[in-house]
Amino acid sequence: MTHYRPPEGRPVSKHLPFGDRRDAPWYGQSIVSVRQFTRSDLEYVFGVAHEMREMVGRIGSFDLLKGKLLANLFYEPSTRTASSFMAAMQRLGGTVIPINEVHYSSVSKGESLPDTIRTLEAYADCIVLRHPQMGAAAEAARVARKPIINAGDGVGEHPTQALLDLFTIAMELGRYAPSRGLALDGLTVTMLGDLRYGRTVHSLARLLSQFGVTLNLVSPAILKMPEHIKDELDKAGVTWREADSLEAILGQSDVLYVTRVQKERFEDEATYLGVKDAYVVTPETLRGARDEMVLMHPFPRVGEISYEVDKDPRAAYFRQMENGMYVRMALLAMVLGKA
Amino acid sequence: MTHYRPPEGRPVSKHLPFGDRRDAPWYGQSIVSVRQFTRSDLEYVFGVAHEMREMVGRIGSFDLLKGKLLANLFYEPSTRTASSFMAAMQRLGGTVIPINEVHYSSVSKGESLPDTIRTLEAYADCIVLRHPQMGAAAEAARVARKPIINAGDGVGEHPTQALLDLFTIAMELGRYAPSRGLALDGLTVTMLGDLRYGRTVHSLARLLSQFGVTLNLVSPAILKMPEHIKDELDKAGVTWREADSLEAILGQSDVLYVTRVQKERFEDEATYLGVKDAYVVTPETLRGARDEMVLMHPFPRVGEISYEVDKDPRAAYFRQMENGMYVRMALLAMVLGKA
Amino acid sequence: MTHYRPPEGRPVSKHLPFGDRRDAPWYGQSIVSVRQFTRSDLEYVFGVAHEMREMVGRIGSFDLLKGKLLANLFYEPSTRTASSFMAAMQRLGGTVIPINEVHYSSVSKGESLPDTIRTLEAYADCIVLRHPQMGAAAEAARVARKPIINAGDGVGEHPTQALLDLFTIAMELGRYAPSRGLALDGLTVTMLGDLRYGRTVHSLARLLSQFGVTLNLVSPAILKMPEHIKDELDKAGVTWREADSLEAILGQSDVLYVTRVQKERFEDEATYLGVKDAYVVTPETLRGARDEMVLMHPFPRVGEISYEVDKDPRAAYFRQMENGMYVRMALLAMVLGKA
Repeated sequence: MTHYRPPEGRPVSKHLPFGDRRDAPWYGQSIVSVRQFTRSDLEYVFGVAHEMREMVGRIGSFDLLKGKLLANLFYEPSTRTASSFMAAMQRLGGTVIPINEVHYSSVSKGESLPDTIRTLEAYADCIVLRHPQMGAAAEAARVARKPIINAGDGVGEHPTQALLDLFTIAMELGRYAPSRGLALDGLTVTMLGDLRYGRTVHSLARLLSQFGVTLNLVSPAILKMPEHIKDELDKAGVTWREADSLEAILGQSDVLYVTRVQKERFEDEATYLGVKDAYVVTPETLRGARDEMVLMHPFPRVGEISYEVDKDPRAAYFRQMENGMYVRMALLAMVLGKA
Repeated sequence: MTHYRPPEGRPVSKHLPFGDRRDAPWYGQSIVSVRQFTRSDLEYVFGVAHEMREMVGRIGSFDLLKGKLLANLFYEPSTRTASSFMAAMQRLGGTVIPINEVHYSSVSKGESLPDTIRTLEAYADCIVLRHPQMGAAAEAARVARKPIINAGDGVGEHPTQALLDLFTIAMELGRYAPSRGLALDGLTVTMLGDLRYGRTVHSLARLLSQFGVTLNLVSPAILKMPEHIKDELDKAGVTWREADSLEAILGQSDVLYVTRVQKERFEDEATYLGVKDAYVVTPETLRGARDEMVLMHPFPRVGEISYEVDKDPRAAYFRQMENGMYVRMALLAMVLGKA
Repeated sequence: MTHYRPPEGRPVSKHLPFGDRRDAPWYGQSIVSVRQFTRSDLEYVFGVAHEMREMVGRIGSFDLLKGKLLANLFYEPSTRTASSFMAAMQRLGGTVIPINEVHYSSVSKGESLPDTIRTLEAYADCIVLRHPQMGAAAEAARVARKPIINAGDGVGEHPTQALLDLFTIAMELGRYAPSRGLALDGLTVTMLGDLRYGRTVHSLARLLSQFGVTLNLVSPAILKMPEHIKDELDKAGVTWREADSLEAILGQSDVLYVTRVQKERFEDEATYLGVKDAYVVTPETLRGARDEMVLMHPFPRVGEISYEVDKDPRAAYFRQMENGMYVRMALLAMVLGKA
């Protein structure tokens, strides 16, 4: 576990009501990067997320974080991620200060990120930060006395997305149980689409490299996985191969993780039109897939998976979103000392 | 009752904590159109709304929907309606995920309405939807497992507005009591202003057509009630007549329902200026009205009713707004199985 | 105490659940101007704010305003003030209807401020109003049955900022204690920067004029404190002097209150560049200051205080923000009859 501890000499939080566990390992920590999570950390997070899922299934909401305030600070819009964190906090009985309009607020009058962070921690117990610049979350965590959770920092990281993706793989394939732990070794995960610019697949690949998995990287030539990620995979001893089509690969996949292929990435429309159909998943595509394969997508989708696929039991993307709420509930409870 | 039931084979909701009444008739239903409401449905809604009014008057708020989450999804701005639903949910102890900035979020990156709905139902227990396109609410209700409440879909419907209008008429005139039910027969309702484009008056006319009322339709020639609505009134056996001035009509009216006459509807300013004064209600106008007449307006007003009228006890428009909160509290409790 | 009482003949509130203190002096009052606050009123507010600080330090949040709804109506963006009021309400167990997008809502379709206020008071128990026009808060208070709290009305007032500034001065210098009351007499307060356009320093100067303080007014020649404020200071018997540099003044100051000097205020850039360095506080500046001096700033800052100063124990601006939350908690509890 790499710790993002609050600056020396400043207390984590002045508020430590009865029941907060100052000795809990994640108490007061910031969540900035997937690199903070060892295998045993992942088991811990998933254990708590699993419990959250059980509790929500049974009673919907509960008062674990009653009285706690979350500042949801979004420098760029993301309805999905913002709503997911709001729901997570509210299902735990906490409340949210939503700050979505940063583009026209005092913040955009030129206030620095550290000043905004130190302002909000004067009011709230925890800050979720979405920012267009890589490194913003780490910078925020450096100055903050309260925990920061990175909800995406530009081309940098989006750790909660990677965690919910991994949790979904584990839950869908029966590879996680509180009693047995996390058993992902031996899986074959195929990533499809834009592997060059998608921070989602980068972070997920990093998390997966802690396990003995095989990765198939299927993308157009100009949208291949970056070399530095492949180097990391090599160092971690992950078996990976590249391809430009799903054929011959899909039948061996336990997971098919689809991402968007954006027209704007291509130099000319002809090239785009030439490749795009190879990256659209339809009921026909799935005929070549295993019955128990898991089909995922970080959403929004714009045509990469046809609507007819939604009825297929392998389509896990809506359950994936719901899992996002459980994972975020777990992280909030952990950094606020209640897990 | 026309049911907007969740799609076959999918559960209404996974969350059914102790106390939810799965057998309640509106549990899990979507509210899409005033056409769903029979006379006995209306009595049921008004019974619950009446109870909400009593409870708010006595204790302000209570925890009937504690732990429930409402996603308030507004594709176009409407401070009044959005605030009313937020207040309704919060007075019932529930919480709200406000999504107002749809125009610049992932949604506007091209995500379809069904995908957005299925995302939000992964987080929330109910979705209130305001959308500029007619039919959007019905489309949302078709794909959703959780209840959708239509908060206005373009030139389509705005059922909660029509319900609160009818509830206000009943309450102001003493035509509803829990013990006696709803007795609107015999009333004369006069609608004034733009009757052509106002979905509010269309929906209200439809609701009123279930009762033996007389309708006066007073509008400029180019802003008359559409033929298809008048056909519906005929089929329902409603007595109606058209006029272009209030004179000779006002004295017989139990209700005067005023709507905005927008300058933009007229081809030239001269025509507009020629008619507009006939559609402004002042203290002088009211001299010709009954003492117990009810003066209503869906708001915002921009000059159609002068401020001096606000002091008149017949001016019911602010009570009308407050009733909106009670009716929405009732609907939320009903579809979430707590009424 | 100058009362902003609700209009004659209309009840303050229909909702008076068990525990509301209708006899409490501020119950149902609007907070529009610092002129409402006598010395004993200030002691009362600070007593409640002090208690809020103690409670938050001990338990974070509590349910004093559970079930109460605040409408946070912002006609212009102010992340800091809006978040502070939201946090204040939520830490008291109440809920918030945030209305930030007024610029594109029905309100901007031409609805008048009184209509918007009367709409929101149909839903909420209290309204916080930020508006670009001077006098807006007083106008709102005139029509409202529920309490209005002025969160800044253009070049008019920002009373909660002035109250939190004074509270911070008192707390930092040990000049307030519940047992002994408020003892600010004899202090020397230096205001630095733009004293002409800053409503913050105007309101604070007014509040301070109730005490036997000395004021130093340090500004560029074109940004001096307006004559009408200096007249008020004279009438109140306050000793004040003007200067264009901190030298010879700083060493005698108990408080240094810094405000922003905006480039746009100057006719040409050369003049601006010539003076601006005299209005930037650095560690060097503070070498000439007393050890127990209090350094304040209403924020946002854009260079007026260098980041290295943040570590200086005299830098009180982040504690000042936190105090803002306690003062707003106090005011909310007071006007809602719970203090």
